[in-house]
This record gives sequence, C-alpha cells and structure tokens, in this order.
Amino acid sequence: MSLTRPVEHDGISDEVAIEEPLEIRVDGAPLAVTMRTPGHDEELALGFLYGEGLIDGPREAGPTADFAGNIVEVAGPLTRDPAARSFYTTSSCGVCGKGALEEVAVHAAPLPAGPVIARPLLADLPERLRQPGFERTGGLHATGLFSPAGELLAVREDVGRHNAMDKVIGRTLLDGGLPLHGRVLCVSGRLSFELVQKAAVAGAPILVGVGAPTSLAIALAADRGLTLAGFARRGGVNVYTGEERVSS
Amino acid sequence: MSLTRPVEHDGISDEVAIEEPLEIRVDGAPLAVTMRTPGHDEELALGFLYGEGLIDGPREAGPTADFAGNIVEVAGPLTRDPAARSFYTTSSCGVCGKGALEEVAVHAAPLPAGPVIARPLLADLPERLRQPGFERTGGLHATGLFSPAGELLAVREDVGRHNAMDKVIGRTLLDGGLPLHGRVLCVSGRLSFELVQKAAVAGAPILVGVGAPTSLAIALAADRGLTLAGFARRGGVNVYTGEERVSS
Repeated sequence: MSLTRPVEHDGISDEVAIEEPLEIRVDGAPLAVTMRTPGHDEELALGFLYGEGLIDGPREAGPTADFAGNIVEVAGPLTRDPAARSFYTTSSCGVCGKGALEEVAVHAAPLPAGPVIARPLLADLPERLRQPGFERTGGLHATGLFSPAGELLAVREDVGRHNAMDKVIGRTLLDGGLPLHGRVLCVSGRLSFELVQKAAVAGAPILVGVGAPTSLAIALAADRGLTLAGFARRGGVNVYTGEERVSS
Repeated sequence: MSLTRPVEHDGISDEVAIEEPLEIRVDGAPLAVTMRTPGHDEELALGFLYGEGLIDGPREAGPTADFAGNIVEVAGPLTRDPAARSFYTTSSCGVCGKGALEEVAVHAAPLPAGPVIARPLLADLPERLRQPGFERTGGLHATGLFSPAGELLAVREDVGRHNAMDKVIGRTLLDGGLPLHGRVLCVSGRLSFELVQKAAVAGAPILVGVGAPTSLAIALAADRGLTLAGFARRGGVNVYTGEERVSS
C-alpha cells in the first residue's frame, strides 16, 4: 500500500502523504478514531491499545467489510474499562502531571538495567532510519526499532508521530517481541509525554529523537528509569535521563 | 506565565518546553483532556470548542479552584451534543475522508473571495512569526494571525500544534474578531486535516505552513475554497489550492 499520493501544484507534479481516518473497534464497538496513513492498520490498533494498557498481549485484528478500508476490528477482551482513565477523572488532586506519571506507572513494568549504547551511535540512529515516504513528501513521521548495535529491526512511517510508534509496537507485539528490553526506539521528531508513555509501556529502555523533549516527557522518563535522548542530529545528541545506558 | 522550564543534561543548563495536561469542562462536566503548554487556557478551550462546532460565540471561561491550575471551566450551553460526531458514527458509507469533509462543511460557512497576498510575502510569513519559546527550546509550535499586508496580529506557542491554533482562534473569538475573513493564518509546522478544519471553521481564507500538507488537508481546503500553502521557507512556497488569492 502506498504511503503517498500524486498532487499538482504551481504547475508541477508532486507527492503528498496520505491521511485518512481510521476507526478502531473492539468486539464491534467503536473505541477511537485517529487520522493516519493507511497501511499496517492492525499494527496501529494493537500498538495503540497496548500503549494505553487496554490489552496485554496479541489479539486478532483486521479490516472490516467497510469499503473505504478505514475500520479495523479488534477481538476483545480488554484488560480494563477504556472509560476509566483515572488520572483525570478520579484523582483527588485534580489534573496534574504527577497524576499522569502515576497513571503510566500502572501499565509500565520496571525497566531492567542496560543495554548500553555508544553516544556516537545513538546520535547517528536517525540517519539509519529508512524514510522513503518522507523523502518523497516531507510529510511523514517515522519510528524505528533498533538493536543497541545500531541494526534497524523495524520501521514505520505515518502522518501521525504517535501512529508510527504504535505501528512498530503493534508489529513487535504480533511477533512476540514485547517487552522491548534490550532495544532502542528512535523517532524522527519531537519527544512528547505520549511517546515516552508508549515506549515505557512497551518496555523500551532507550528512546531517542531528532527533536526536543518536553518537560513532562523528561519527568516521565526519569520516573520510569528510561533513557531519553533528543536533538540527535549532526553527530550530537543530548541525554536527559538514564545516562548510565550511554557510553562515551 | 513562562512557556519553558530549566533542565540539566550532559552537565549543562538548558531549557525545555513545558507540557502539562489540561482538562476542559463545560458546565462542570469533563469534555476533553489535552497535553498543552500552560497559559492562555481559556483561549485554548474556546478555540477548541469553536473549531469542533460546539460553540458559535464567546463563552465565559476560566480556571477552576484546582490547585494544579490544569482545569479550565467553560459556561455552556453547547450548540450540539459533543458525542454526536456524525462522520464516523452514523455515515452509511463507513469511515472515509469524504465523510470527514462533509462533517466540517456543516460547521464552516462558505469563504468570501479574497484577500490577495503576494507570493513573496506569503513565503516570508514564517520568518515574521515571533517564537521566543521555540528559540529557547526547539520544542514549541506556533500559529500566527496576519493581515494580508504581513502585519502580525496575534501569535501563540504551544507544545501541541493544534493548541497553538486553538489559542489564536480563541483569543480572536474573545476579541469579537471571528470570522477571520481577510486574515491569514501561519503555522510553524506541517499542515494536517485538523489544522485546515480549524482554519476553515474560523473563516480564515488563507493558511500557510512551513511544512508539508497531507492529502486530506488539501482535499478539505479545496472543498471549502480555502487557499492552502506549504513549505514556506527560504523564499519559496507551494500553493496547493485557492491560487486566486496569491499574486505573483
């Protein structure tokens, strides 16, 4: 399935990233709609549900008879009620970053020590991401799964940065590869709270990105003992947490 | 309120963008939670509700007694039931991009002809965005509201690209400046369906971004008669739709 579509502008032919809605259903009931690039939809659905703590292992998943191809059906059961997201509905302190960290801790088991990756290699991982869709459109985010030796094990591109990581995690879930102990996740953009959440729940000890981290991304990484690195570009990289997994 | 926070990494002092959850309540009932950079929360809430077609004019809005400062309360009524988002729950064709376009058309009145902006000025608008938070952190998106003569009328920065636009639209709503006929919106990043939706519902005839548009962003802009331009950088700009508003 193609990630891109031809477009005409200013008298020339070009390509843009495809964006379409996807509805995720569980046992026939609509759970969520996300805008995504079509393809690997079952991976996206399973990775999303896993990152939210709604499933703890593989489930059957696939397209419905919807002719637009934009509905993915997942077989239940879920491990919890999706409406019961405690950090903002029941916390007595109101909505706060601390509550968000505690919510993730429920679903993210402690990370083991290691692996250790050399700083120059960590800085170079974005260069090793294969991004054919981005090269054609400039409009796709990517997530890559790497070994600590820098071997690219899986990569997905999507208009949504979260979707790209969900697809990599969903693929790994289907392959029996979770938790991601001993692996490194690399993203092509910035590092938000939600991306650290997904990495932590999937058990990835190291997350590196081309862009900047947010305050809450750093706080969550510190809380879960995850190594968080940003601004991996032009041979340099900033290591915000978990420096023990980075060697000089 | 500061957009950034100090952080230590690799033995140096640096700054990162602040990210915290915000709960939007309407008449006391939780409606949505978003991760955002604190500040201008009432603008964010009102701009978000306006873009979703849930309000059609200003509402009273302000913080609750929540000590974390992460809850904003909006006075109702809403113009429709927030759960009834027809494009994915009732469309007989299932989920599809066409349904998403039709959903936006319900809330986005037709755009008038004009204004006309010179192509070199359109390409230069991102340079005229004031982004002090981005300059300190590399981690904030910005949306600016411009006159067709290139005058910056309002700007907001946020870790979330949608939030930055919601804040600008919410500010303008409070100031009685909607619809945005005769104005130009400029964003610091990519152009997704949702950003075009927000611009179209707010009545902005021209939207320009530094980054790439998606296929559905272009389709929606064409459907609503909005001028959509991307890759505004280094003196160049691509015009995907509504070329009649761009002069050479």
